[in-house]
Amino acid sequence: MTNFRKDPLYNRWVLMVPGRGKRPHAFYREKEKDDGKVCPFCEGREEKTPPEIDSFRVKGKANEPGWKIRVVPNKYPALTRELKIGWVSKGLFQSIKGYGTHEVIIETPSHSKTLYNMDEEEISLIFKMYRKRTIILKEDKNLKYIFIFKNYGRIAGASFPHSHSQILGLPLIPPFVEEEIKRISDSLNCIYCHLILKARKDRRILTKNSDFIALAPYASLVPYQITVFPLEHKPYFEEISDVEINSLSRIIKEIFQRYNKILRAPAFNFFIHTFPRDKRCKNYHYHLQIMPKLTLQAGFEMGSGIFINPVPPKTAIRELKS
Amino acid sequence: MTNFRKDPLYNRWVLMVPGRGKRPHAFYREKEKDDGKVCPFCEGREEKTPPEIDSFRVKGKANEPGWKIRVVPNKYPALTRELKIGWVSKGLFQSIKGYGTHEVIIETPSHSKTLYNMDEEEISLIFKMYRKRTIILKEDKNLKYIFIFKNYGRIAGASFPHSHSQILGLPLIPPFVEEEIKRISDSLNCIYCHLILKARKDRRILTKNSDFIALAPYASLVPYQITVFPLEHKPYFEEISDVEINSLSRIIKEIFQRYNKILRAPAFNFFIHTFPRDKRCKNYHYHLQIMPKLTLQAGFEMGSGIFINPVPPKTAIRELKS
Repeated sequence: MTNFRKDPLYNRWVLMVPGRGKRPHAFYREKEKDDGKVCPFCEGREEKTPPEIDSFRVKGKANEPGWKIRVVPNKYPALTRELKIGWVSKGLFQSIKGYGTHEVIIETPSHSKTLYNMDEEEISLIFKMYRKRTIILKEDKNLKYIFIFKNYGRIAGASFPHSHSQILGLPLIPPFVEEEIKRISDSLNCIYCHLILKARKDRRILTKNSDFIALAPYASLVPYQITVFPLEHKPYFEEISDVEINSLSRIIKEIFQRYNKILRAPAFNFFIHTFPRDKRCKNYHYHLQIMPKLTLQAGFEMGSGIFINPVPPKTAIRELKS
Repeated sequence: MTNFRKDPLYNRWVLMVPGRGKRPHAFYREKEKDDGKVCPFCEGREEKTPPEIDSFRVKGKANEPGWKIRVVPNKYPALTRELKIGWVSKGLFQSIKGYGTHEVIIETPSHSKTLYNMDEEEISLIFKMYRKRTIILKEDKNLKYIFIFKNYGRIAGASFPHSHSQILGLPLIPPFVEEEIKRISDSLNCIYCHLILKARKDRRILTKNSDFIALAPYASLVPYQITVFPLEHKPYFEEISDVEINSLSRIIKEIFQRYNKILRAPAFNFFIHTFPRDKRCKNYHYHLQIMPKLTLQAGFEMGSGIFINPVPPKTAIRELKS
């Protein structure tokens, strides 16, 4: 049975998904299929995915061509709503049933479009769909957290090359978000404003506009990692306005243009941290974390909780701006 | 300057190693060199590495052929003793200078020997050298932790195919070890004995002998992960006896035989957790963690602290025993 297990020793959870090992490309040795001829995410092949949940369209009906963005259930979901929600707590050995949702956002009808060559308007539609799906998923009170992420490139964990993101509706708050919340509640002032201020002093700013700032974090886990924050306290990503989405899309476009130029369009991971549904908070800034996949996490990282980064953030910014 | 930076939001450290980006194979796009003709770790090419620190030999002098195990400084060390030890604490933004040591254990003179085809005696020499180096490195009171790990296969982060391990002497206790210590001090009984007992009840035992037990942990992070514990409370790996090393080598040999048969000699990460030097403790069992590299950690894992594992530990044991 699909369930989350709390590690008895460390602050982390493992989601056990029996049977998922059987899904195509699940193990690394199986290569990413880069054959546009059979890509299930391309326009005109709508019948190759499970029936769509949502879309932005210029024409056509559900599961027909004419869409700009399409949302479908993951064919091999890590979580489903078929299981009832429930804790199974046994002292050291806690677990939670794998209740939840797993959606795929197909970001473009075109097989060759990626964040490296989309225009601002195309990017803004992706954020609009993130916002829409988050608002809808939050109606399910059993989902404690809506987690949006994206893997691009086989080495970064993508099973398909066609540009897509994923949204997991989770029955628990992720450990990393919990750690942030704990840190916030230990502090009187806004830590995120402090992080932004320090990045300015340290010259770790890549770019900014009236609403957002893109910086290389002080303890960047990986080379050329960029975090995007709204300049003002904004706990909830899904409360982003259309005007802010335009600002954000401009910043994202610039970041990926620079990655393209300096790093030659690397594989990357991307995720959004937003404040959990059931909590109120003023001192939080949702943020987008972009991590190019240029190094491999190995035995030292897996075993110690220490990452080795060969490109300090100030160097990364200098190079990305060159 | 090489330094450790504490993440202001999460319980993790990042070791910034400027210049390490230039080392061969540092970024994933550069392929592992599998050319035995130029391998610097092969017997007869001792001049290709920095001068050796230690060895077990049947004949010859330092930096000559005739060795069974050879220890050399990492040519591109993540840490050196050239920096003075020191904390630089600035509120949210803590850092420690990158004082430390970085050694490479060349496990065999032969290019084609690996844990998949070594005999028990060859394996036992590796553990004897781990023990010897740990005891020697612990004489430096500035090293707060001796971390032993191994990456095998390019996808698991190995830069060279010739079988080798690494030992980092660290000026801090790794966050994951700190979490274990905190968990122990919250508990009256031995957590590790409890973990072993539960694994027996759950039928998650792969194999055991008079001294050691190999099990698939309750919250296995990755498919087919195996943890090896001494059956009795043993905090310090370096206090292992010759007899225990023989027992351990038998268990390790069996694990890798099973991996070879069922998983076809996958890439893997391996590390040892032992108790830190400056602390006394009765209720700890040092342990060896072996993680086959069959899945990729992607945006969800990096951003949430939740891992997705498609092979639950009980299934893993059933398959490995088949």
